[in-house]
Amino acid sequence: MTDPVFSESGAPQPVHGGESITFGENSALRLDCGIELAQFTLAYQTYGELNAEKSNVVLVCHALTGDQYVAGTHPVTGKSGWWNLMVGPGLPLDTNRYFVICVNVLGGCMGSTGPKETDPATGKPWGPSFPFVTVADMVRAQVMVLDHLGIDQLFCVIGGSMGGMQVLEWAVSHPERVFSAVPIAAAARHSAQNIAFHEVGRQAIMADPEWREGNYLLHGTHPHAGLAVARMAAHITYLSEAALRRKFGRKLQDRDTLSFGFDADFQVESYLRHQGSTFVDRFDANSYLYITRAMDYFDLAAEHDGNLASAFRNTPVRYCVISFTSDWLFPTPESREIVHALTAEAANVSFVEVKTDKGHDAFLLDEPEFFKTLVGFLNGAANRRGLKGP
Amino acid sequence: MTDPVFSESGAPQPVHGGESITFGENSALRLDCGIELAQFTLAYQTYGELNAEKSNVVLVCHALTGDQYVAGTHPVTGKSGWWNLMVGPGLPLDTNRYFVICVNVLGGCMGSTGPKETDPATGKPWGPSFPFVTVADMVRAQVMVLDHLGIDQLFCVIGGSMGGMQVLEWAVSHPERVFSAVPIAAAARHSAQNIAFHEVGRQAIMADPEWREGNYLLHGTHPHAGLAVARMAAHITYLSEAALRRKFGRKLQDRDTLSFGFDADFQVESYLRHQGSTFVDRFDANSYLYITRAMDYFDLAAEHDGNLASAFRNTPVRYCVISFTSDWLFPTPESREIVHALTAEAANVSFVEVKTDKGHDAFLLDEPEFFKTLVGFLNGAANRRGLKGP
Repeated sequence: MTDPVFSESGAPQPVHGGESITFGENSALRLDCGIELAQFTLAYQTYGELNAEKSNVVLVCHALTGDQYVAGTHPVTGKSGWWNLMVGPGLPLDTNRYFVICVNVLGGCMGSTGPKETDPATGKPWGPSFPFVTVADMVRAQVMVLDHLGIDQLFCVIGGSMGGMQVLEWAVSHPERVFSAVPIAAAARHSAQNIAFHEVGRQAIMADPEWREGNYLLHGTHPHAGLAVARMAAHITYLSEAALRRKFGRKLQDRDTLSFGFDADFQVESYLRHQGSTFVDRFDANSYLYITRAMDYFDLAAEHDGNLASAFRNTPVRYCVISFTSDWLFPTPESREIVHALTAEAANVSFVEVKTDKGHDAFLLDEPEFFKTLVGFLNGAANRRGLKGP
Repeated sequence: MTDPVFSESGAPQPVHGGESITFGENSALRLDCGIELAQFTLAYQTYGELNAEKSNVVLVCHALTGDQYVAGTHPVTGKSGWWNLMVGPGLPLDTNRYFVICVNVLGGCMGSTGPKETDPATGKPWGPSFPFVTVADMVRAQVMVLDHLGIDQLFCVIGGSMGGMQVLEWAVSHPERVFSAVPIAAAARHSAQNIAFHEVGRQAIMADPEWREGNYLLHGTHPHAGLAVARMAAHITYLSEAALRRKFGRKLQDRDTLSFGFDADFQVESYLRHQGSTFVDRFDANSYLYITRAMDYFDLAAEHDGNLASAFRNTPVRYCVISFTSDWLFPTPESREIVHALTAEAANVSFVEVKTDKGHDAFLLDEPEFFKTLVGFLNGAANRRGLKGP
């Protein structure tokens, strides 16, 4: 096949643009927090064509600030989908072969029910009264979408970061519905350091007086300043020190000498500020609070008497675990722990640590070794599954 | 000598409590930003006794949020001095042998002139009109204190983090006045990642409406929320992932099960919040802005045509460079770069990387290998200098 990285085929546009399903009271979703969500909507996008056997489905799970617009042009931001390099004709998730679907997570802000949507019981935005959701709840909601579409089994469930957490949750809670699973730059539980960084972001949002105890939509205010700070802090953790040094070093921004002021003297400051200010235009502050909390709560072993291996007992799922050398947010030992647990259960697992200096964000970027690993795994699994070539 | 770590001798109280010197117009200080500071005060503390030859002086340089209260009980916080384990009778900086002095940095908030003090020209707090200071300016101010005290040469200048930056600046700009120098957990220039973390903290402060463009003292407001977020973000960088895991892991705070809420479920969250809320009681938000900026600007090579080695040309100073394996804020390669430059100039330099999982904060903690290294170096230097034993 052509090198996916250098494929010149145009990015696919969503073939079923703006799909969503609203579930009514007959299909209420009982959340981990104990609350029943009686009416809710899940927005999703699909790319490629579902085959007659419905055997070519790849479920992509998005990360904290991602959404269902994996490829093509994002209808809100006008930018490319977040996995444009990955999903499309001739790309690793080849839409000539696979039917790719991505669901905006429950609690999100791109069409699925979340704190910025209207609570049907009150007619007002949910805001801080939105129930807490977990990664398992997100997966339960995705299961309902697939049931609705009549899809029994996923050929593959794949995702990075929080997407990888969903992949693990899927494979563990519905092993019979998952043929293969690819958790990327993920972990079986959120670490203390990661909880700490999330807490800084939440405190930044909640310290913004415009947050109004979470009721900013009712007041017509916007906690943009707090959300931007949260994004800036998080963004540093997505990169590696080496990448920051290579990309910015101590280079000055639009000036030859230091300003002796608090303007963005350094390019890295200017870059971070830009990351913060553009993020607030597309993301809801309360969604940020809820989704970071869902990640903090994720602990796959805790759901299985503290024993990660037992989560994988007798699993029929084919796993491909991928980590990146310079990822310090979800460092390789976290992936290795998953692999050790799978191995202890004699599961079918491949593990690749991709050498890169691009940090956690490497899963979103042009990383030839990563793509090659993935294509190899997917081809093998597709042949085993009896899928036709592209 | 007794093991300094387990010394049972009481912590020394400052012997010259609350000293400060106010410099008048005849001794104006020309800052790197071009502004002349015509009247300013420098607060300092001393411990131990100056010998007749004035040859036993150890200048301790404090870090970003430190101050001159190195040992004993801090008069503002009521807590122990930040280097209580290091400075005192029988401790590595043995006050029976050395005369220890620490000056609150220019721009600080513990008695030295900084943004929270009164501008004599206006009778109002300096606030955001305080001139920008650099690490070199901080050192220039310390030189004036030592001149005032009639001290020609420091037996040793020592400090960690930003303190280590001052140590380097001292040794490079006044080599004839420094017998030995110990930069700990430091760097010859601030990295892109560190500038980025500082920028997050500054944005958190400046996003707080109570900051009032820096004029909060005039308005009687306090940007506590923003400063607390800044401190929380920074505090994570002072620790290692391993230390956070060992100390907190995913342990819950005062509860058995998850709350499904935004309270501090996890101990690490509670700890961070505590760090934020106690910090605002003792630190000035504008000082935080100014001092972080001074660190960002620090680049010793840039002052010497981009060549770090030439900064050390013909240096007579005995160097002991110390780093910590788990310090990711000032990682060992940064120290190694200093050592390489010194070695290229055939300088007298020892280098020790201390193995510890305690991260950047290790320089403040009970680290036997660190203390042993330091005592060995200081004893050798003291003998060479002809200082009497304790």
